[in-house]
Amino acid sequence: MKFLWTLSTVLLIVAPSILASNNGNNRLDMAAQRRAANIHRMDTIILLTYMSVMVVIVVTAWAFKHYRFRFIHESGVTLFYGLLIGFVIRYFGLGLMQSQTFDVETKNKSMVNEPPDYLMLEVKPEGGSRVSFHYELIEGFFADKRKKIEQQIEQKSVFSPEVFFNMLIPPIIFNAGYSLKKRHFFRNIGSILAIVFIGTTISCFGTGCLMFVFTSIFRMGYTFKELLFFGALISATDPVTIISVFNDMNVEADLFALIFGESALNDAVAIVLSEVIENFSTSSEAITLQDFGSAIAGFGGVFFGSLMLGFTIGCMNAFLTKMTLIAEHPLLESSLFVLISYISFLVAEVCGLTGIVSVLFCGIAQAHYTYNNLSDESQGNTKHFFHMVSFIMESFIFCYIGVSVFVTNNQRWSFSFLFFSLISITASRALFVYPLSWLLNVRRRPKIPMRYQHMILFAGLRGAMAFALAGRNTSTENRQTIFATTTAVVIVTVLVNGGLTSWMIDYLQIKHGKDAIEEGQRLENSMSCSTSQGEHNSEMDESIPVTMAPGLNPWDKAFLPRKWYHFDASFMKPLLTHATPSLEQTLPPICLPLTSLLTSSRQRAYINAEPFDTIVQHFTN
Amino acid sequence: MKFLWTLSTVLLIVAPSILASNNGNNRLDMAAQRRAANIHRMDTIILLTYMSVMVVIVVTAWAFKHYRFRFIHESGVTLFYGLLIGFVIRYFGLGLMQSQTFDVETKNKSMVNEPPDYLMLEVKPEGGSRVSFHYELIEGFFADKRKKIEQQIEQKSVFSPEVFFNMLIPPIIFNAGYSLKKRHFFRNIGSILAIVFIGTTISCFGTGCLMFVFTSIFRMGYTFKELLFFGALISATDPVTIISVFNDMNVEADLFALIFGESALNDAVAIVLSEVIENFSTSSEAITLQDFGSAIAGFGGVFFGSLMLGFTIGCMNAFLTKMTLIAEHPLLESSLFVLISYISFLVAEVCGLTGIVSVLFCGIAQAHYTYNNLSDESQGNTKHFFHMVSFIMESFIFCYIGVSVFVTNNQRWSFSFLFFSLISITASRALFVYPLSWLLNVRRRPKIPMRYQHMILFAGLRGAMAFALAGRNTSTENRQTIFATTTAVVIVTVLVNGGLTSWMIDYLQIKHGKDAIEEGQRLENSMSCSTSQGEHNSEMDESIPVTMAPGLNPWDKAFLPRKWYHFDASFMKPLLTHATPSLEQTLPPICLPLTSLLTSSRQRAYINAEPFDTIVQHFTN
Repeated sequence: MKFLWTLSTVLLIVAPSILASNNGNNRLDMAAQRRAANIHRMDTIILLTYMSVMVVIVVTAWAFKHYRFRFIHESGVTLFYGLLIGFVIRYFGLGLMQSQTFDVETKNKSMVNEPPDYLMLEVKPEGGSRVSFHYELIEGFFADKRKKIEQQIEQKSVFSPEVFFNMLIPPIIFNAGYSLKKRHFFRNIGSILAIVFIGTTISCFGTGCLMFVFTSIFRMGYTFKELLFFGALISATDPVTIISVFNDMNVEADLFALIFGESALNDAVAIVLSEVIENFSTSSEAITLQDFGSAIAGFGGVFFGSLMLGFTIGCMNAFLTKMTLIAEHPLLESSLFVLISYISFLVAEVCGLTGIVSVLFCGIAQAHYTYNNLSDESQGNTKHFFHMVSFIMESFIFCYIGVSVFVTNNQRWSFSFLFFSLISITASRALFVYPLSWLLNVRRRPKIPMRYQHMILFAGLRGAMAFALAGRNTSTENRQTIFATTTAVVIVTVLVNGGLTSWMIDYLQIKHGKDAIEEGQRLENSMSCSTSQGEHNSEMDESIPVTMAPGLNPWDKAFLPRKWYHFDASFMKPLLTHATPSLEQTLPPICLPLTSLLTSSRQRAYINAEPFDTIVQHFTN
Repeated sequence: MKFLWTLSTVLLIVAPSILASNNGNNRLDMAAQRRAANIHRMDTIILLTYMSVMVVIVVTAWAFKHYRFRFIHESGVTLFYGLLIGFVIRYFGLGLMQSQTFDVETKNKSMVNEPPDYLMLEVKPEGGSRVSFHYELIEGFFADKRKKIEQQIEQKSVFSPEVFFNMLIPPIIFNAGYSLKKRHFFRNIGSILAIVFIGTTISCFGTGCLMFVFTSIFRMGYTFKELLFFGALISATDPVTIISVFNDMNVEADLFALIFGESALNDAVAIVLSEVIENFSTSSEAITLQDFGSAIAGFGGVFFGSLMLGFTIGCMNAFLTKMTLIAEHPLLESSLFVLISYISFLVAEVCGLTGIVSVLFCGIAQAHYTYNNLSDESQGNTKHFFHMVSFIMESFIFCYIGVSVFVTNNQRWSFSFLFFSLISITASRALFVYPLSWLLNVRRRPKIPMRYQHMILFAGLRGAMAFALAGRNTSTENRQTIFATTTAVVIVTVLVNGGLTSWMIDYLQIKHGKDAIEEGQRLENSMSCSTSQGEHNSEMDESIPVTMAPGLNPWDKAFLPRKWYHFDASFMKPLLTHATPSLEQTLPPICLPLTSLLTSSRQRAYINAEPFDTIVQHFTN
């Protein structure tokens, strides 16, 4: 393969004559100064625009809540505002730009009296169409060539769109895990995992095949690989969107667990699938059984690896907060909590695992263990902090998606492609929801009723994750169409499905609001004797582990969960929190040297005080 | 479940035949994909490194507090960790880089089988040295040239180092305003403004002139303009550093007000000065008196413009929270509070004012008015949120400054320049501290004692703002030296002056810790009969405005402050908060239609309830 590089040799000859004056460097200097000022101004204007929109969004959200207006959902409104702002920036915001683009090929020498802000490099591969790369000026210029590698490192230390998503999505998912109704989530874990692993795979290949059929019929020129890639990234429903649409509804807890559980965990599958599909082309050979085996191993490895990593990091933080006296300084304690939670995301991403799954389970572990060790102040702080941050980030993401439709130009719109996509993703979602539910219902108690199945189909909302995955590589026109279509699917599902969710819930006669809470509590009480009264209000209050009464709750019949409950109560909680019984009591006496080391003074005080407390309680009763 | 997997196997085997088409675009596509993955990985690793260091920093900070270790200050330790990490990245982190640089001039076409990540454009002005511009590949490539302008807009929508500072510094300054001990700040406002306006200007020109003398003697080749610019950016002491060093010390409140007030407000002067100096070169003529006059007007305009803007935005938020029922939804209320506070920074920057001054006074207004309208939950939330965020941001900034020494390569080290700089800035700081204090002491009561003056000289800590200003333009070698020197001055002042502050405070026999608080309260009580008992713990509790007793406090003697107090109690507070007396009571009856509109139901209820409350109080006493 040869490239025909049309290089800027001309410019190299031209430039000196332009800069001929003695104060050539001075003019460059001035230009750089102006450029820095312009960039600063531009950045600030765009940030200000976003922030102002968000103020409007918050006020709108308040008005919606206050006047109980339910037809359009907040996320939908946010998206809509984003679209509006994007439109304004696109058609009225061009005057703001003061930078200059220099096209290497046009050779318009007379215009060059400043270092151009952009260079365009045109390449014509043999047998391919002409492509052009855009280059942006990096701050500063150096006479020394040795510094090039260092320059690259510096560039990586600053923000990029990737980091943008690294910073916005994690707090939302963490908050979901941190405030999760654990009981319902884990009771349905089997069904959730089946939907996540089998369902997402079916949906991916179903979408890919259907789209291949459609695009082949209409000769739209997509390879099967591209469509499979599209299938992979569009198959994952989005936790951010699901949370924002369903959180206020208070639907029946099992249904929410299924829908939210799927959305939170299927990102892992979608990411692995898309990577496997990408790798097809490296060999370009027939796919062997080995590839297939490694794909399955990949699924499992990535998923459970991420899960364990997040959980372990959460536990480490619990251990740290238990064994040190950092609770004396709530500010440091809360900061540590926030930082370590974020690290669980980053470590997973660095290890090639999925940060989303990791940070979700880190959140669960933090709520289950660390929360109980925190000072009262930090308990409130961390809860409110993540609540507020995730709300702001969420609004920002929806707003950003809306803006991107008009502002970015790596989106290429194809309405036929979009139309076929919507058909394909709905069909392939139906293709797994109903058969899989039927299969699961063979053994599952309580069964997944038909109205849940309809709702799961309907709740296939796509969001930030699909948007981020599709936007990561938009190098070819087909990929730009895929990106645009993904954005459109996100907007359609959020506006239409999200907007109609409350209507659909009523139509399917699914309990929600106070009804669902009462129903849930009634069921709880009838099924289990554990203290679940206040659970719906705050799951976090389970600070003192009661020995579980296994066998009464249908979920407890399963072997593994029962084992886990026992292990949790007799080892994990005593090890990681100040809860009693302590390890000294639950482990055999032979471990005493170790267990006494791991028992906190608060635990010991609590054990010693217990009889006295009981007496007091006796008297006051 | 197995049959489902077989289905996908068949599909997988079919796939490659379709994927077989291999062309040039496909390889470019792959390269872009790999590049995206690399960037993501690199970004994540760097973020993870920062976060891990911050965990270590938090744990160290806790250990320092716990074991009462005071010799090295936390900021110093953070800087030190940053330096360490920068060193590791510089000398051991090169292997992480997988991107490729393509040098335009070498024309090594044979090596190009992927789009190069970077282009270097070499330019050699006549009579100047060879300069080279680095260009980074922008995501995506387009056949369509029309899209270039849109591409630029998109580029501006994402993060840059500028935005980095837009996001990190504002919360710290806002938090400073939000938790400011207002009484002491405003009591010293005259002296603070004198130091800010006259002192910073003297320091700027003093440093510039001294440096010009030094560099001329040793023929280092700097223009006077460059050195004046250096003087301007290095003259501003840094609020972030001052806060982090002095906050835990609890030094005498007047001294802290002087030092902190100077650092918070002199950024405006430094920014205006540096802009004025930049503009000198456009004409390259002698500086006329007109230039000088417009500079003074610039000072005043920028400073008071920013002040008024921030204050107004704060008041608007107070009005919004008063007149709506948003307090019913604390999450939305807190989010609105955070967003509007941030907007005060952005609007100022967009208008060409200084965001730092704006956000500081917005914080003061928010604490003075809005805070009283917030729900109890939001009061706690916002306080803790800003406290935590500013702590984290602060640690991050110091860490980043440390890292930058080794990682960035737009810093050119010159130890002789650094040595002369340290002499110049100390000398020119002394040049204004002592004469100005002497002048101020002519009328000021209480006078600024000599030990305060020594301390103000010693507390000339530079920090993030100087670093950001110097890093904004590093286009010439001289500017790179200035950036490196600024970084070094930051490090030296933070490590040496910051580290020795507690020793210096003892040496100068300045009261600190509990002594200062007791002393302050004793003075308060002897001088004023207003209720200042709990003030040192939380200034924010002044929720019900008591009518001031003017004349007893020395500060109240001044005409303007007295007028302001009166205006605040009889108009601003009734207008913007739920405090009584309401506007209906303080304004003449002729305004009744308007005032009744602006009186909240809570105010009215409070007024009606007041007699009853008084009775109750009477009985309980």
